[in-house]
Amino acid sequence: MSQQVAPVTLRDIQRPVAAELERVAAELRRIIAADFPFIAEVNEHLLRMKGKLFRPTLLLLSHQAAGAEDPRAVTLAAVVELIHLATLVHDDSVDHSVLRRGMPTINALFSHQVAVIMGDYLYSRAIIELVRLDDLEPLRVFARVTNEMTIGEMRQLEAHDKLAYAEAEYDELIRAKTASLLSAACEIGALRAPDAYRAALARFGMRLGMAFQIADDLLDYTAPEAVTGKPSALDLKEHKMTLPLIAALGAMGPTDRRLVAELLATPEPSEALVADVIRRVTAAGGLDAARRRAVELAQQAEAELELLPPTPARDALRDSIEYAVERRS
Amino acid sequence: MSQQVAPVTLRDIQRPVAAELERVAAELRRIIAADFPFIAEVNEHLLRMKGKLFRPTLLLLSHQAAGAEDPRAVTLAAVVELIHLATLVHDDSVDHSVLRRGMPTINALFSHQVAVIMGDYLYSRAIIELVRLDDLEPLRVFARVTNEMTIGEMRQLEAHDKLAYAEAEYDELIRAKTASLLSAACEIGALRAPDAYRAALARFGMRLGMAFQIADDLLDYTAPEAVTGKPSALDLKEHKMTLPLIAALGAMGPTDRRLVAELLATPEPSEALVADVIRRVTAAGGLDAARRRAVELAQQAEAELELLPPTPARDALRDSIEYAVERRS
Repeated sequence: MSQQVAPVTLRDIQRPVAAELERVAAELRRIIAADFPFIAEVNEHLLRMKGKLFRPTLLLLSHQAAGAEDPRAVTLAAVVELIHLATLVHDDSVDHSVLRRGMPTINALFSHQVAVIMGDYLYSRAIIELVRLDDLEPLRVFARVTNEMTIGEMRQLEAHDKLAYAEAEYDELIRAKTASLLSAACEIGALRAPDAYRAALARFGMRLGMAFQIADDLLDYTAPEAVTGKPSALDLKEHKMTLPLIAALGAMGPTDRRLVAELLATPEPSEALVADVIRRVTAAGGLDAARRRAVELAQQAEAELELLPPTPARDALRDSIEYAVERRS
Repeated sequence: MSQQVAPVTLRDIQRPVAAELERVAAELRRIIAADFPFIAEVNEHLLRMKGKLFRPTLLLLSHQAAGAEDPRAVTLAAVVELIHLATLVHDDSVDHSVLRRGMPTINALFSHQVAVIMGDYLYSRAIIELVRLDDLEPLRVFARVTNEMTIGEMRQLEAHDKLAYAEAEYDELIRAKTASLLSAACEIGALRAPDAYRAALARFGMRLGMAFQIADDLLDYTAPEAVTGKPSALDLKEHKMTLPLIAALGAMGPTDRRLVAELLATPEPSEALVADVIRRVTAAGGLDAARRRAVELAQQAEAELELLPPTPARDALRDSIEYAVERRS
């Protein structure tokens, strides 16, 4: 995929929908606005924490690429970001994360309680906004997907026999946890397009999302905190089974497997133990295997775009695959 | 209101809708069913914990009293209970409660994480079910109300200057936190009835819900753990400003106020200090004032029923007021 030219930036991808994206932040602000001063204060923090708007970008590009002409596109783009935000607030609370996008999380800055309630507040605002659009179709997609995301979170929490965790289970997990919402973003952008476009974009988003999550899981092994804005090797410290480790376990000898088992049995593993496991996962080919799987999914995603007419938006969707797989943060 | 005859039981109130109520539990089970074994396990615990179905009872009685003939009534009754359940799961997690209805809470039995995710799971299932009904109207009411409930929770968490907490703020709090969902239950039962009935029942539910919450807050001062299934004086231990205390503060001298201030400044107050404050709140007339306010709201609720034709369901709604105000658990 990557021809070793200048890497694709998010700004490149966003160019065809830059004008609409400009309006997403204001729309998001409108949707979550609160009279109660404390909620308004938490909102301000969340809005300052603003993310890369990757999901709104996908929604708006899919909308344009499918020729959907949907006047609700910017609002729907704000809603997909809002649902993502609500999920992050609860995830950070569940994971006891203290940093997100280089800023303190809601649970860290306020409290666990505030994070739980605030996530509920944001999600119910998303539903109110969708009801206001007076159409059950986006609601149908978002409701299904937010439920899938909770099942994904539960799968993550409840991986029993970790050393035997299979790649198929990991696939289920990342589909539910991450890819489902990216797929929904692409599908919802194309709600008013022909069914074949809508279905292709939903499949595109699912593959892209899986590749995106694998790239994210790889970053946990490779990227320093200064780049990602969150502590490095956090997944490993929290005993999360991600693809680099799962793939490596299959190729590891008993000594290495014992070391992994030791880490998984240690509530707060030392930096030295974590670094040792990272080295052995790398040596056993875990990172390479994960990269290969990401590239495979990326190719499947790209194939789905062939159905769409050639447009700058379609090219940007193609570039978004490279961005998702090759990103460094 | 109470003529010192045998107290109204929930079973009495439920008689006109007993057949429909029988079907609510099975409907709830269907709506939350999960393939993932761990979620199915948590579901089983939640279903065993089954509550008194007060909200479904109100919905079904309102439906019958308004002559609404809505074939979705049982499903909507299950959804209102489900939304209540999702809220309880998050509330218990936020409050670190260990007991609910005499059984361990999800956060106590599993973990805080499971409680957060499970609440999201249940709520998103409620939305999916509402979307399936293919009508935006119940969604509109439920979405507004679930958002109000989160604002109520935040108000509860964020009472700054507690000694100056005003009864008007308390009213706002209990409207949002409790009464809004009881009002929604009554309103949604009457969605297919004439608008005037729907509006009267919504107002009835709001007044009833406020009275219900005041009665609940009184029980925290008066009922032993063996009766309520949760620790007694928990609100006071957690520094929650409820009506008995707010009303008493206005009548207290400086010595009593200092003692209350001491309790509010103590993270884990002793049983002796708590008992002392309860005595002084009682002596200052706090319990009596709260009871008077509950009776006043009960009368306002009763007045709303006059618009409806006389039926056994209307009589049961009238009895539900007495049940809400006079209950002992």
